[in-house]
Amino acid sequence: MERYIVKRIPRCDENTCNEFARLGSATVYEAQGQTGLLNVRIKPIQQDASVCGPAVTVICPAGDNLMIHAAVECCEPGDILVVTTEGESNKQGMIGELLAKSLMKRGVKAVIMDGGVRDTAQIRELGFPVWTTSIVCTGTTKSKAGWVNAPAVCAGTLVEPGDLMVADDDGVVVVKREDIPEVLEKSLAREKKEQGTTQKIEEGQLGIDFYGFREVLAKLGVRYYDTVEEADKSVHPKQEK
Amino acid sequence: MERYIVKRIPRCDENTCNEFARLGSATVYEAQGQTGLLNVRIKPIQQDASVCGPAVTVICPAGDNLMIHAAVECCEPGDILVVTTEGESNKQGMIGELLAKSLMKRGVKAVIMDGGVRDTAQIRELGFPVWTTSIVCTGTTKSKAGWVNAPAVCAGTLVEPGDLMVADDDGVVVVKREDIPEVLEKSLAREKKEQGTTQKIEEGQLGIDFYGFREVLAKLGVRYYDTVEEADKSVHPKQEK
Amino acid sequence: MERYIVKRIPRCDENTCNEFARLGSATVYEAQGQTGLLNVRIKPIQQDASVCGPAVTVICPAGDNLMIHAAVECCEPGDILVVTTEGESNKQGMIGELLAKSLMKRGVKAVIMDGGVRDTAQIRELGFPVWTTSIVCTGTTKSKAGWVNAPAVCAGTLVEPGDLMVADDDGVVVVKREDIPEVLEKSLAREKKEQGTTQKIEEGQLGIDFYGFREVLAKLGVRYYDTVEEADKSVHPKQEK
Amino acid sequence: MERYIVKRIPRCDENTCNEFARLGSATVYEAQGQTGLLNVRIKPIQQDASVCGPAVTVICPAGDNLMIHAAVECCEPGDILVVTTEGESNKQGMIGELLAKSLMKRGVKAVIMDGGVRDTAQIRELGFPVWTTSIVCTGTTKSKAGWVNAPAVCAGTLVEPGDLMVADDDGVVVVKREDIPEVLEKSLAREKKEQGTTQKIEEGQLGIDFYGFREVLAKLGVRYYDTVEEADKSVHPKQEK
Amino acid sequence: MERYIVKRIPRCDENTCNEFARLGSATVYEAQGQTGLLNVRIKPIQQDASVCGPAVTVICPAGDNLMIHAAVECCEPGDILVVTTEGESNKQGMIGELLAKSLMKRGVKAVIMDGGVRDTAQIRELGFPVWTTSIVCTGTTKSKAGWVNAPAVCAGTLVEPGDLMVADDDGVVVVKREDIPEVLEKSLAREKKEQGTTQKIEEGQLGIDFYGFREVLAKLGVRYYDTVEEADKSVHPKQEK
Amino acid sequence: MERYIVKRIPRCDENTCNEFARLGSATVYEAQGQTGLLNVRIKPIQQDASVCGPAVTVICPAGDNLMIHAAVECCEPGDILVVTTEGESNKQGMIGELLAKSLMKRGVKAVIMDGGVRDTAQIRELGFPVWTTSIVCTGTTKSKAGWVNAPAVCAGTLVEPGDLMVADDDGVVVVKREDIPEVLEKSLAREKKEQGTTQKIEEGQLGIDFYGFREVLAKLGVRYYDTVEEADKSVHPKQEK
Repeated sequence: MERYIVKRIPRCDENTCNEFARLGSATVYEAQGQTGLLNVRIKPIQQDASVCGPAVTVICPAGDNLMIHAAVECCEPGDILVVTTEGESNKQGMIGELLAKSLMKRGVKAVIMDGGVRDTAQIRELGFPVWTTSIVCTGTTKSKAGWVNAPAVCAGTLVEPGDLMVADDDGVVVVKREDIPEVLEKSLAREKKEQGTTQKIEEGQLGIDFYGFREVLAKLGVRYYDTVEEADKSVHPKQEK
Repeated sequence: MERYIVKRIPRCDENTCNEFARLGSATVYEAQGQTGLLNVRIKPIQQDASVCGPAVTVICPAGDNLMIHAAVECCEPGDILVVTTEGESNKQGMIGELLAKSLMKRGVKAVIMDGGVRDTAQIRELGFPVWTTSIVCTGTTKSKAGWVNAPAVCAGTLVEPGDLMVADDDGVVVVKREDIPEVLEKSLAREKKEQGTTQKIEEGQLGIDFYGFREVLAKLGVRYYDTVEEADKSVHPKQEK
Repeated sequence: MERYIVKRIPRCDENTCNEFARLGSATVYEAQGQTGLLNVRIKPIQQDASVCGPAVTVICPAGDNLMIHAAVECCEPGDILVVTTEGESNKQGMIGELLAKSLMKRGVKAVIMDGGVRDTAQIRELGFPVWTTSIVCTGTTKSKAGWVNAPAVCAGTLVEPGDLMVADDDGVVVVKREDIPEVLEKSLAREKKEQGTTQKIEEGQLGIDFYGFREVLAKLGVRYYDTVEEADKSVHPKQEK
Repeated sequence: MERYIVKRIPRCDENTCNEFARLGSATVYEAQGQTGLLNVRIKPIQQDASVCGPAVTVICPAGDNLMIHAAVECCEPGDILVVTTEGESNKQGMIGELLAKSLMKRGVKAVIMDGGVRDTAQIRELGFPVWTTSIVCTGTTKSKAGWVNAPAVCAGTLVEPGDLMVADDDGVVVVKREDIPEVLEKSLAREKKEQGTTQKIEEGQLGIDFYGFREVLAKLGVRYYDTVEEADKSVHPKQEK
Repeated sequence: MERYIVKRIPRCDENTCNEFARLGSATVYEAQGQTGLLNVRIKPIQQDASVCGPAVTVICPAGDNLMIHAAVECCEPGDILVVTTEGESNKQGMIGELLAKSLMKRGVKAVIMDGGVRDTAQIRELGFPVWTTSIVCTGTTKSKAGWVNAPAVCAGTLVEPGDLMVADDDGVVVVKREDIPEVLEKSLAREKKEQGTTQKIEEGQLGIDFYGFREVLAKLGVRYYDTVEEADKSVHPKQEK
Repeated sequence: MERYIVKRIPRCDENTCNEFARLGSATVYEAQGQTGLLNVRIKPIQQDASVCGPAVTVICPAGDNLMIHAAVECCEPGDILVVTTEGESNKQGMIGELLAKSLMKRGVKAVIMDGGVRDTAQIRELGFPVWTTSIVCTGTTKSKAGWVNAPAVCAGTLVEPGDLMVADDDGVVVVKREDIPEVLEKSLAREKKEQGTTQKIEEGQLGIDFYGFREVLAKLGVRYYDTVEEADKSVHPKQEK
């Protein structure tokens, strides 16, 4: 139960982060076998931001943000701060404008907060992206010990320091550090395939054809009717009398 | 329990749809006797869109969107795709950017989804309006049979193919196909009445006067006091001692 | 159980209101000893509005807005209408465009509604700020007696007529009328202190230093490690074998 | 914002309390004009308990139960302890077995807690009735100032010291102290009327007859059909073709 | 939009109902292809009741139970009353002790209520099983028109008069009237199969063997390790350094 | 992303488990520094069960229980099966009567399920304790790979194989394997202290005295008044006029 701070984490290169940010949470989630999604109760306070970077993790006791202050100097440019608390902290604003400014000053790209956030208008104005489970004007105590860069459970998912966080309007996905190259490759392959599909759609082709779904439907025994009345007659024959 | 696809649905004319879209969900809901509202857990992913069109209905097994692919070719320009699932699908993105593009290509006006949606930033960028119960980056399987254009329960309300969907920032309302002319007439009457009220308000008249509410209040025995202290004395006489 | 309307409430001066609006809910909440916050289920329908004014309170029976109509003429320019209902009214639009226009005509600054609101697109268009627990297109009855300017519980917090409401994107805070001067003074002191902190942050100083948190961490026995591996070895010695 | 403890509260006689407990929350709620109900998120931890007594109110800061300890000596036999917190305390067990024993020793009848409770198995074993918003094994701090016997908002409803609390499986209702005699009289009248109704039901009479609802239905234009098919034909004439 | 009452519904025989009640919701749900489940927000107010009978459906306007009174005389012994409302009615006790007694007098077996219920202690005492979305002591108005024995959406699922309701501690399942014989047969087959499985379990056999899951696991590439340490070394080879 | 099964886990002795079960979740949670609590959405399906044993962990893909079948043979008498899923599984009954019987046959003491459970009446009848996030009659697929005895996040908390689970009516607490002796010692010390407190309470002493809280209240500046009226006069002097 020792509480501690780890100063250095492993980080992947910036280009890889940028690629993941461009690919987005949906593509990355699928590419890595449908794992790593944080619970959907984590939502962005802004629209249209898409970011990726290595996780600096913080575990705070509920309603206390001392460890976030301790985490600031462990951050390098491009990092994403991932904060969780022991017990729920949706009624406390675990970060506000001042911490956002401190983190921006260190080059931190974004915060993923399993807890509340305040000063949201000001933080949006600063252009600092935040994902949170709650918006609330309250503050916190600053007096309790926790961890920086220990394995942390954020919104139901395990995040270890240096794991990549991919966050956009659709949610937040974690890529385990050891899986980064494999997931990038699969994500790019997936993107390429989707571009081919997009072209078919623009030519007016139907997914039911180019995915081969007509056969699937036939095998499943799905019947076609021309009108609602015909279907009705066939399905509820007894009601006809 | 036969599963099927109906290719053609009855559709009302475009002008009627445009009128309903202009009138909006609140006016239409009232005009048809306060019925037809989908549960408020269905919310728009964009602001300020107001649409109306005949429903093409889809029932999918939970977390599987094969039937949405099958529904695309049943759609005509101006339609609204209404999707529901057997069991809840809030943790699955039942449609994303590619299906949105496919539907736009067919001239579909909007999607009403009792389930999750992904690629929301991209779909907003496309200008394609969507109402949904959840935003989430996950995908679905594409292998299970359901129904296209069968009667469907969407967000707690029965929608039959060809019913009109009226959707805006305040919610989604269904107008039963056989009630369309009557509801349109009553909605227009209601609009006219509201315009008269608006004028009175702009002239500085008070609703308490022009609605005749002073009499109602008098009948209900509501008393007037000049100050908080007077009311307090009258209501809690025992506390004075 | 007598139901009544009080016509006049005590009001503080406009400058004070403007100062509180500028200071915002987070600063005021802290300055008054972390009290007075309405439940976070009350959220704005718009972004970036920040308002403050004396409360005209309304208590309606659930799903009936007659008393809001009665309250309009009790309002003066700069007031904020605070509405609550006996029992929940999240499935009813307790105010809509027409009432918003009536209130604007009286100079009312905003509505805080523990219940539903409709015509939200139109109300945003009018530039009239509203905080609400629910957006829904339904209406209400207009036939039941309640109170205007009685003590009211709004989103779990007691609001008395003439109390100041401070509302922005982070939430809604009530300042009791007798505490206004003290809370203003403390809020301004807090603001000044935060400006000092902001400057330190901009100079590149760390909160862990200027708040004196290094000592706190030391007292709490928080250890520093250089790498994740070192921390792991120290914490789970048995797993090394 | 001064925090304080009031030692003595007004109490009504025990017979009245027993009568209200026998009558139950539903009858009392109706008899007093459908007011005074605490939010339904407050639920009993036991079945079949029905209690009534004057409220000793406690307001604690969130997650701190010092003031409950202070309240114990303000309680007299027959009282009901009503606890609420500034901000939510659903993740903290605000009372447990030891406080339950302390309160029983003072003759307290029950606790109504807008917050969490722990040791629920032991408290049920003791036969001490508790209504709460959450069951959770965590504890609290015991170091922060609040109020005993100040006006308190419990589960959204204002409770003043000496108000009567009526609690059973259906919920918790507050009777304002000044309304006790009137509400008791109306509750007894209501009970008598229900006994008459019960007898009619046991004789096999139908509510639709003895309440006169056949006329109401006729006025509302509700039609009678013999079979589902007949209703269907009449309502959807176009679908017949 | 005509509102009406249908007096007679089709009913299946009592033996079939008893069989379905014995088989229970889980078996029936699976046997009919995993359809027909009401939303899990509908829960029993008692434990260990298991019932089945044909549905008499009622649609009430929100918070008004006039139509339930009208439905009583449409009920025959063995029926199950299924009630839903237009809009949500979780804050209203749509039935209480008196209506429960009236329904028992008619031989009704149970109530499935998509809305609130009161007098729950008394109803349990009477031995009358009820499934509901909310327990609350409030009452309703009795003045608004709805439908008896029209198609009704209850907890998100379409129920038509005469459909079978199967309800127990695990939930409520609807069997469409035309599917009753087929679903009964499949349910009995399923029960027989489960009895065989039970015997194997009692003999000490493992599901992984008698279901053939060892092969499935092998095909999926799931590896076996003897200890946690071995698995850890194999999965995170980089962390070993 | 390799998926695997670990056959053997470290286990602590039975006496220690029995001691922890007797001490209960509240005492253990406090003794280990207020950590290790699973989210309160996990609730027991029975009353008055209190268990403790080493965790055999299972991670299933959402809605698929193949890995639970694989886990059965990894269990030894006295174990507790802890199941979680990638993504939410509250709409699926991940275990039912047959799996409960299989687990009982292996001597498993209980299941902690972050997902749904079915056949709850039968499982209670068997006397097999289960904690779950949802009761629902649906089943699962049995075809997807996951993990047995990998680190698992259950209801928001990290559980590793061999960690102790302490579960009762108040919730579920995890004791990390390496902390077991220390936490047991502290729990027993805590129990002893509580027994002393219980005796004082039975003698009629007040916590405000034997905890030394009178001094705390004095330091916090909490004032005492004799009556509500006196407090009122002192706090709101302006309202006297």
